[in-house]
Amino acid sequence: QTPARAFTRGTKVGRRASSSLCKDGGARGVVRAPRSALLRLLLARSAGFGSCPATKPKMLNVHLVPHTHDDVGWLKTVDQYYYGGRNDIQHAGVQYILDSVVAALQKDPARRFIYVETAFFYRWWKQQNPSTRRVVTQLVEQGRLEFINGGWCMSDEATTHYSAVIDQMTLGLRFLNDTFGECGRPRVAWHIDPFGHAREHASLFAQMGFDGFFFGRLDYQDKARRMKAREMEMVWRASQSLKPPAADLFTGVLPNGYNPPPGFCWDQSCSDAPVQDDPDLDDYNVDMLVATFLNIASAQAQVYKTNHIVMTMGSDFQYENANLWYKNMDKLIRYVNAQQANGSVVNVLYSTPSCYLQELHLANLTWPLKTDDFFPYADDAHDFWTGYFTSRPALKRYERLSNSLLQTCNQLEVLGGAKSRSGPFGEGHSDTMKRAMAVAQHHDAVSGTERQHVAYDYAKRLATGWAHCQVLVRNSLAVLSGSDVPRVFCENLNISVCPLTEGSKKFSMNVYNPLARVVTWSVRLPVNGTSYSVTDSNGKEMDSQVSVCVSSSTDHSGSQPVYFVCVVEGSSFIAKCPLCGRYNASGGDAESRQASGAYIFRPNSSTPISINQNPNISTLQEVRQQFSPWVSQVVRLYNGSRELELEWTVGPVPVADGLGKEVITRLDSNISSAGYFYTDSNGREVMERRKDYRPTWDLKQTEPIAGNYYPINSRAFIKDGRNQMTVVTDRSQGVSSIYNGSLEIMLHRRLLHDDVRGVEEPLSEPGEFADGLVVRGRLLVMLTPPETAADMHRPLAQGMVLQPMLSFQEGALPRNFSGLQAALPPAVHLLTVSQWSNDSVLLRLEHQYEMNLQVTCTQIANGLGANQWKEDMKRLQWKPSTDPTPWEITLQPMEIRTFLLRVQRR
Amino acid sequence: QTPARAFTRGTKVGRRASSSLCKDGGARGVVRAPRSALLRLLLARSAGFGSCPATKPKMLNVHLVPHTHDDVGWLKTVDQYYYGGRNDIQHAGVQYILDSVVAALQKDPARRFIYVETAFFYRWWKQQNPSTRRVVTQLVEQGRLEFINGGWCMSDEATTHYSAVIDQMTLGLRFLNDTFGECGRPRVAWHIDPFGHAREHASLFAQMGFDGFFFGRLDYQDKARRMKAREMEMVWRASQSLKPPAADLFTGVLPNGYNPPPGFCWDQSCSDAPVQDDPDLDDYNVDMLVATFLNIASAQAQVYKTNHIVMTMGSDFQYENANLWYKNMDKLIRYVNAQQANGSVVNVLYSTPSCYLQELHLANLTWPLKTDDFFPYADDAHDFWTGYFTSRPALKRYERLSNSLLQTCNQLEVLGGAKSRSGPFGEGHSDTMKRAMAVAQHHDAVSGTERQHVAYDYAKRLATGWAHCQVLVRNSLAVLSGSDVPRVFCENLNISVCPLTEGSKKFSMNVYNPLARVVTWSVRLPVNGTSYSVTDSNGKEMDSQVSVCVSSSTDHSGSQPVYFVCVVEGSSFIAKCPLCGRYNASGGDAESRQASGAYIFRPNSSTPISINQNPNISTLQEVRQQFSPWVSQVVRLYNGSRELELEWTVGPVPVADGLGKEVITRLDSNISSAGYFYTDSNGREVMERRKDYRPTWDLKQTEPIAGNYYPINSRAFIKDGRNQMTVVTDRSQGVSSIYNGSLEIMLHRRLLHDDVRGVEEPLSEPGEFADGLVVRGRLLVMLTPPETAADMHRPLAQGMVLQPMLSFQEGALPRNFSGLQAALPPAVHLLTVSQWSNDSVLLRLEHQYEMNLQVTCTQIANGLGANQWKEDMKRLQWKPSTDPTPWEITLQPMEIRTFLLRVQRR
Repeated sequence: QTPARAFTRGTKVGRRASSSLCKDGGARGVVRAPRSALLRLLLARSAGFGSCPATKPKMLNVHLVPHTHDDVGWLKTVDQYYYGGRNDIQHAGVQYILDSVVAALQKDPARRFIYVETAFFYRWWKQQNPSTRRVVTQLVEQGRLEFINGGWCMSDEATTHYSAVIDQMTLGLRFLNDTFGECGRPRVAWHIDPFGHAREHASLFAQMGFDGFFFGRLDYQDKARRMKAREMEMVWRASQSLKPPAADLFTGVLPNGYNPPPGFCWDQSCSDAPVQDDPDLDDYNVDMLVATFLNIASAQAQVYKTNHIVMTMGSDFQYENANLWYKNMDKLIRYVNAQQANGSVVNVLYSTPSCYLQELHLANLTWPLKTDDFFPYADDAHDFWTGYFTSRPALKRYERLSNSLLQTCNQLEVLGGAKSRSGPFGEGHSDTMKRAMAVAQHHDAVSGTERQHVAYDYAKRLATGWAHCQVLVRNSLAVLSGSDVPRVFCENLNISVCPLTEGSKKFSMNVYNPLARVVTWSVRLPVNGTSYSVTDSNGKEMDSQVSVCVSSSTDHSGSQPVYFVCVVEGSSFIAKCPLCGRYNASGGDAESRQASGAYIFRPNSSTPISINQNPNISTLQEVRQQFSPWVSQVVRLYNGSRELELEWTVGPVPVADGLGKEVITRLDSNISSAGYFYTDSNGREVMERRKDYRPTWDLKQTEPIAGNYYPINSRAFIKDGRNQMTVVTDRSQGVSSIYNGSLEIMLHRRLLHDDVRGVEEPLSEPGEFADGLVVRGRLLVMLTPPETAADMHRPLAQGMVLQPMLSFQEGALPRNFSGLQAALPPAVHLLTVSQWSNDSVLLRLEHQYEMNLQVTCTQIANGLGANQWKEDMKRLQWKPSTDPTPWEITLQPMEIRTFLLRVQRR
Repeated sequence: QTPARAFTRGTKVGRRASSSLCKDGGARGVVRAPRSALLRLLLARSAGFGSCPATKPKMLNVHLVPHTHDDVGWLKTVDQYYYGGRNDIQHAGVQYILDSVVAALQKDPARRFIYVETAFFYRWWKQQNPSTRRVVTQLVEQGRLEFINGGWCMSDEATTHYSAVIDQMTLGLRFLNDTFGECGRPRVAWHIDPFGHAREHASLFAQMGFDGFFFGRLDYQDKARRMKAREMEMVWRASQSLKPPAADLFTGVLPNGYNPPPGFCWDQSCSDAPVQDDPDLDDYNVDMLVATFLNIASAQAQVYKTNHIVMTMGSDFQYENANLWYKNMDKLIRYVNAQQANGSVVNVLYSTPSCYLQELHLANLTWPLKTDDFFPYADDAHDFWTGYFTSRPALKRYERLSNSLLQTCNQLEVLGGAKSRSGPFGEGHSDTMKRAMAVAQHHDAVSGTERQHVAYDYAKRLATGWAHCQVLVRNSLAVLSGSDVPRVFCENLNISVCPLTEGSKKFSMNVYNPLARVVTWSVRLPVNGTSYSVTDSNGKEMDSQVSVCVSSSTDHSGSQPVYFVCVVEGSSFIAKCPLCGRYNASGGDAESRQASGAYIFRPNSSTPISINQNPNISTLQEVRQQFSPWVSQVVRLYNGSRELELEWTVGPVPVADGLGKEVITRLDSNISSAGYFYTDSNGREVMERRKDYRPTWDLKQTEPIAGNYYPINSRAFIKDGRNQMTVVTDRSQGVSSIYNGSLEIMLHRRLLHDDVRGVEEPLSEPGEFADGLVVRGRLLVMLTPPETAADMHRPLAQGMVLQPMLSFQEGALPRNFSGLQAALPPAVHLLTVSQWSNDSVLLRLEHQYEMNLQVTCTQIANGLGANQWKEDMKRLQWKPSTDPTPWEITLQPMEIRTFLLRVQRR
């Protein structure tokens, strides 16, 4: 048994066998295809698109794409969406969608459907009997049911970290691969709903082997320009480091977001007139509908380049009763195509994004080149979707922390072997955590744009995931350390709560470092004494200073003073970094009724309000700044470190004055940044930003603050020729540089209005005791020459993402261990180590600097999504208007390589 | 080819062959039936209920009845409901319901569904291909899809005339019979939504061969009492004249109206939690749902008599996505029945009303006897559904007039032969009118409880129906009169408009009398001269006086005075009959928020407000009373007549004072009525009413006016030992007797509030020019000894229902003709003469008095619904608590007999 079995079901047995095409089931819509279309179809088959419907080369072909958009949680939890529970909140039940579509597809081989969110499909598949599974498999093999995108969810692009995105894609793609083999492999990435698009996402999709990418939302000014210029479809060169076309991705903007054209929504959730084709009944409307449709098709063809256009026939949670859609589309196709006999040149057909993509590819045109990204997203002059970069900061942090814990859990599962799943502490596994993290990547999860009860559900899933991982981790640590003494995890250390350390005279702490190199990590523990001796595992006194700090008022729930063991040097230097300033949120004004909300940021004035220019400062080994009862900051500079740590605490944000508030911290410097600033894209490559400017169109700026906000996932910086000020964050946040030399980061938001994008709930998170949530976080600030900045901020950021896992036990420390024989070189980041099957391990190594490095590995290279072999990855090649370069398999700077290791345990 | 072919499809060939049972398809839910259940099943088969599911005799059997309630027009038109158009008003699309249910039934032979409204099923069936038709036929033959009720619509019971009800039932039942034969014959009448139940309806259902009747709405006090006394199910003795059990009908009150028990609605329109049975997902709820269901079943069993209870699993326009319902019911049945292993005695099964009825019959109990009716219906103390007895008086009149026209059209089709359908005036037919009239019987049509645009649609359908009939009538009159001179119909004579008579010096008028006896009928025609000679068809001067009358201000649209030819003696006597009185409608008050609306009548005071005690009176050959600018009356006493004609004109009802108004006319007399009054039931038998009293329970009267209103369709009277004052109406209206010797009739209503029963539109009908509809109507009032009253009011009422059809032509009159060789005796009413097939004619004769009469007919007797032979009608026999009498085939007083005549044209 070889690992290859995991990647293709059935046909493929050897690792070097050429990729088999997805089966042709024979029941395709090839009837009435003219000769030339048949020829093209043969071509198409050789490209692996064998089941696409015939088109008519001399006509305008309208590809109807029946689809549903199933949020993996939003107004309801993912389970409520799956079952159709709480339909009083929103009518949506995914189980029925899949039931219904499978039944409707069986009725006519011409019908097509795409399915996107594997989190749901997986739940549904589990509950099907063998006969339904056979039917579905056949539909997939015949291309009538096609998986598109295929991740566990459709990830958010602004607030996700690339490592979690890769994981969630892998989880979904693996399920499809295990279940359907090559026929289940999505060829198209499909992010029809996310609110802005990250270049790094496009880069990842390219590396995962997707042939194209379609989305629905982009800036309204950008869209208007693209329509005029026929630039709705393009080649996105998604990396400055990877050698083209490694990160080139054909990208299309869909014509109607992801909705059908107006008047043609036939879902049960819509009210458009059905095709009323019985002349005996009132309201016969066939002639009118056909004429309207022909007008729409013709107008749409004006803004696209080929004689193929696409229409998304579906929307949120649609197709719960697929019959409504298909029955009316069947009629539409029949009546519109019947007009061909009267000279119409419009040919309507059921299709899929990949079949549409194939036709664009066959058109053999050149396409505009895109190198920046699609942030920020505005759908109108005062409607900038930049608030969600920061919405729900606590959830955003918990998600990031969970990612770190999951990676640790994965690594310890590999290192600990079979006993980690079943050992002295019971049955543990990482599956729950993997799924919880995958679900949390959804564009209404970590984005913070879900309802409150759904946010709780995401957090609960992560907590459950971590509980299952904890058992695994305890088992694994027992194996690795040779001691099965109970270990305790202190999850509330950020508020200085840890019953074991607070109640024990002698305890020991395990530190597991998931990075593949040595890190220095400061730990602060609450204790109940004033004098402690700290030794390492060999009993050697540690080179550190033990100090006692007084708890701040927001820490701990007890009333008496709390002391800390602070493994840290006393701070000595305070930079000019006031935590000032907040914006009062707009509730709508005369200019526009748009209010700040979960998605949208709109301050009611462009000048931030300083909370307190002269904070009370108390200095111990750290500087504590109390700006107001609800805003405080601790500033620390650790011994040997060049970065300043700003630990901010914000909340409960008062709203008694009737104004929502969006709290920022602004770091001012004398750097001549001249309106430029830099933000990371999903924690990987860096994007240049410029105030009141967009690289691809002549911006008319309408919101001087909100219109200049961009997402960061790990860092932002400003620089001039001599200095660079870099900020590394502990979670995704919104950032901007409004003034020369200044960088502002939005920390927390509490709002009183809904922003009318569907949530219908103001973003006002309740706290545990008070009336608003208190959030605490960390920023690391450093000032360096620009040339050496990356050497510092890249490891720092990776250290924030993959932080050491601490566990505690009474008494003495067991032995040290390491999963690595030696640390990896600084350029190489150990992205993934995860058990794949009983005898295989998934390994991802990442080049994290812009330089060449050869990584030698004797194992099998694999596509980034871990659902196809790299050498089988034959993506469609697209011609950008600039010169393309040939495909080469070499390790590029910023490239991630995925390996599947066959392991034998000694 | 015999007429018998028309009644059973396929198996039956000779008229005397015994009725074949509906086929047993073999795919029934008889699995796991215990031995005794199998035995009972065999018994059941011999009763013609062969496809019923097995039950468990020692358990509480819960019959789940999956059903949809599809209004034949209400908030949307019947066509909008069929197609699912205007889903912005209400989400409902019947085409999809039937698609969806047929698909769901195929998935599991245990599943059942009932369908009720043939108006919709007919439309759907027309559009199905042969393969779907085969599938549906099989489902019907196997009892998995069962037709219930089966009329074109579910008729209103308060405002319909029995002749139109019989016609609409015949239309639906015939379609089912033609299409599915015996297996398509409904065994159960099912009026789950009508707002009160007429005894005459029950009588008709019994005579149509129904074995039982279920409904949902009855007075809340009555229901409470019946639940306590376990009298929810009963035998309704529905005629005082017909010999029991001819009009005995087993009648059941459903437990939850027609809805599922609370918490168990799984339609797409509901928000109850689905069965969430995946323990891996959140919100697992199987244990909770099973426990709740067992509690509900056990509570319901407390108020019914047997170990069988029924639950209606469906509601308005449900099952558009049947999968939701069936998937969850499948699980409910599985999980609830699984509890039998733990000692539960509840057995849940898919069933139908007829299968439930069969079990009740097999229980062999006696049942309470009911002899009155279920009017008025109140669902709370101040919520009497007595407003709709009068709502939309113009539509109510138009419907009644259309009935008359349809009967004339039917008769002339028979008399004129094939040339009436295709003759000198083109292609004509009665089908549109039959269907329009059938649709108009719906309980949100003639009831006046539909939205305004839907009311227009009903009227438009009737107008279209009449247009198609007009061609037929013209053709037929040409054949019968031997003259194909063009004939004109003056449809606006009630407002004195007839261009032909107004513009011609010499014209002739045809009078077609659809009654089977001679009638005297007064005609008033607008003309433009002052002196006319009136002769009969032989040129003989008619025994009548020609007079000239001045038009009233509300007549005609022209400005100049209009003259009339009035074939009438001058009036000589004015009774005391002031048109006073209106009620101001309640908009809700401190006692209850209930407002008057389309359904509900609730005056804001019990004392009517006199519009004018001293009207201006001008006397010509008639007395004209002008009470106010918007209320007037003409009083006429025709030569040789003993009845007084009151022609009332009401509207536009002013509402500028912020009060809706309900206009009544009150007829006061010195009759000692002592609180008793009498109303007809659907135009047939008479019901005794008593103020503040109900025969079957101890009434707590909470609305002194609205709670005493009853519907009349043709007449009402009060009497004492010596005198009877009878009022014959021209349409259905609400009536009461609040004071001794007085009878009040509600004429018109205009309201400013919705009554919160779903219409969501105040009943305020717009007029043609002004802001409110003007309505005109006639009441005939007579004072007679009680013994001879019926001799007078029965023919008068029949003459109002089937009135002469007038047509006009320029020039001389063609020859007279008669379809009868002699007039029928006064006791016999010619109810129906209608072409049934090319060589057969449907004939219905009715005994309209309470006396014996033998009608000899050499043709074949048939059930009232014309869908089975009378000798095949083997209804289940039920034991009322009083003695039953044996079945006899004799013509009873008040009986209607239906004949199918084979005709040969000479």
